[in-house]
Amino acid sequence: MNKDDFPIVLGHEGAGIVESVGPGVNEFQPGDKVIPLPFPQCGKCRFCKSPKTNQCAEARNTDSSNMRAPQDSRLTCKGKKVLQFFGTSTFSQYTVMNQMAVAKIDPAAPLDKVFLLGCGICTGYGAAVNDAKVEPGSTCAVFGLGAVGLAAVMGCKAAGAKRIIAVDINPEKFEKAKVFGATDFVNPKDHNKPISEVLTDMTNGGVDYSLECIGNVEVMRSALESCVKGWGVAVIVGFTDKDDFAARPIQLIAGRTWKGSTLGGYKMKTGVPEMVKAYLNGKIKLDEFITHNMTLAQINDAIQLLEHGKCIRTALSVSPP
Amino acid sequence: MNKDDFPIVLGHEGAGIVESVGPGVNEFQPGDKVIPLPFPQCGKCRFCKSPKTNQCAEARNTDSSNMRAPQDSRLTCKGKKVLQFFGTSTFSQYTVMNQMAVAKIDPAAPLDKVFLLGCGICTGYGAAVNDAKVEPGSTCAVFGLGAVGLAAVMGCKAAGAKRIIAVDINPEKFEKAKVFGATDFVNPKDHNKPISEVLTDMTNGGVDYSLECIGNVEVMRSALESCVKGWGVAVIVGFTDKDDFAARPIQLIAGRTWKGSTLGGYKMKTGVPEMVKAYLNGKIKLDEFITHNMTLAQINDAIQLLEHGKCIRTALSVSPP
Repeated sequence: MNKDDFPIVLGHEGAGIVESVGPGVNEFQPGDKVIPLPFPQCGKCRFCKSPKTNQCAEARNTDSSNMRAPQDSRLTCKGKKVLQFFGTSTFSQYTVMNQMAVAKIDPAAPLDKVFLLGCGICTGYGAAVNDAKVEPGSTCAVFGLGAVGLAAVMGCKAAGAKRIIAVDINPEKFEKAKVFGATDFVNPKDHNKPISEVLTDMTNGGVDYSLECIGNVEVMRSALESCVKGWGVAVIVGFTDKDDFAARPIQLIAGRTWKGSTLGGYKMKTGVPEMVKAYLNGKIKLDEFITHNMTLAQINDAIQLLEHGKCIRTALSVSPP
Repeated sequence: MNKDDFPIVLGHEGAGIVESVGPGVNEFQPGDKVIPLPFPQCGKCRFCKSPKTNQCAEARNTDSSNMRAPQDSRLTCKGKKVLQFFGTSTFSQYTVMNQMAVAKIDPAAPLDKVFLLGCGICTGYGAAVNDAKVEPGSTCAVFGLGAVGLAAVMGCKAAGAKRIIAVDINPEKFEKAKVFGATDFVNPKDHNKPISEVLTDMTNGGVDYSLECIGNVEVMRSALESCVKGWGVAVIVGFTDKDDFAARPIQLIAGRTWKGSTLGGYKMKTGVPEMVKAYLNGKIKLDEFITHNMTLAQINDAIQLLEHGKCIRTALSVSPP
């Protein structure tokens, strides 16, 4: 983010209840349980109408403006405009959203759990099931074991992967990865050769699917190079916009595919309510991602825990005590 | 190629007649019409057994040894070993091949036409139909209008593309591209903005499929950036192993896919005979690629024509006059 992106209300993974609706809103009424979406689904553009993608034309993710609202921000402070992070701004008790970026969810859903479906968990899980399209019996590698990576592990397992190799330089993450289905654990710091060689040796030629869940272009390359020739699929899930990713052409010419994923490929307005149902039906885990519970006043502590790799997700209550 | 790759007999697109078979050869007999293959199909490895790929384990395309024979060369000159280019060496009247790298073709096939199916034409055509999997009604861009690029144009048309944009800095190629089905022609030298912007403007957001048929990493990037977000697929068809290809992660994160292609994805031993049949049945063009006919003695003239963009393919007769 640069200085033009401030002042801003941060936060984009949340859940709440509709307090009121403005003119033209026809899909919601006060009292509805909802999840605000960092990516809209207008339902009218050629992207929304295609079954192939969730890249709604109303989303602006092809340049640096992606941090801002898909429409003008509706937040103000003392009469001055305040920006909305990813159009959501969930680090506040109230926000104002366009209905094309709000998902109505099951009234039975616990908000302090399903808020996770607003971004990270759908992102990782969907990257495995929708984008990589992991097949039963396959071997997968997941690079980076934050919430997104752990959700990717969960997605690989749900898709029937036989072997799921969890890769992180913080071995404290491995226990959690096991909870979500990882079968093997590799710390690149334990090896004095490139991690792609380690994985290639472990798997007799490379994994069928790899998911980069960090946002590091060097790891993106490693993830591609860890794939087996012929049919290996590497998916870029982590976000960065500062550097190029790169590899040798032979990596693709030999039959590998390089893809990317936004929010796990879910058309969010319809996909998030389905994921909420999957949680309520015990088909996906959410509670296990939440390592801490705090209030909005403790937000800086929560960020510090995340920075130091001490938490997966903190559930932050934004209501006054 | 480096100095360890010599002495060598070059040439890898050919067709011929079996003169004799050695011990253990059970698929061929003298008189069979055949096409030598630069890529084997052993039929036994996990890659040959998978419907997903043509990357036979006997092929060595993941390092620089890909220029050599998949088995030891069987050519000698005055008692000294001579290497075989891509295991074939078709710039000679006789060669010696392993049967896993030979395709038996229809006895009715004219050798002076179907020899093209040994590499370039399958490479371009298959990249469109097998790897990009071009869909009916789509918009495609083909970068580079040599034989491979023209075959890619033909593949896009066969797959039902509505619009095929042919891109080359040599406008003399456009007339030929039209023969194979191109609908639009763009010379990057006619524009003072990046070619990806030109194509994006022409197509309201980018093409559905792009095929790089040159082997230039900058063009590979342009081909990716010319694709529409959401579902655009860029296929690297041209070969180079000297430099990295690169792009910004957002290009993939926004829903594009980067793939590569070897020999158009065809399992050659079974695929080439089918392409020969397609030619005999008038389903694909071959004659139109052949702009010159020469003898082996004129090979340096043929290479010069190619270097100066004056020919598409020269049919070279290797038999003594």
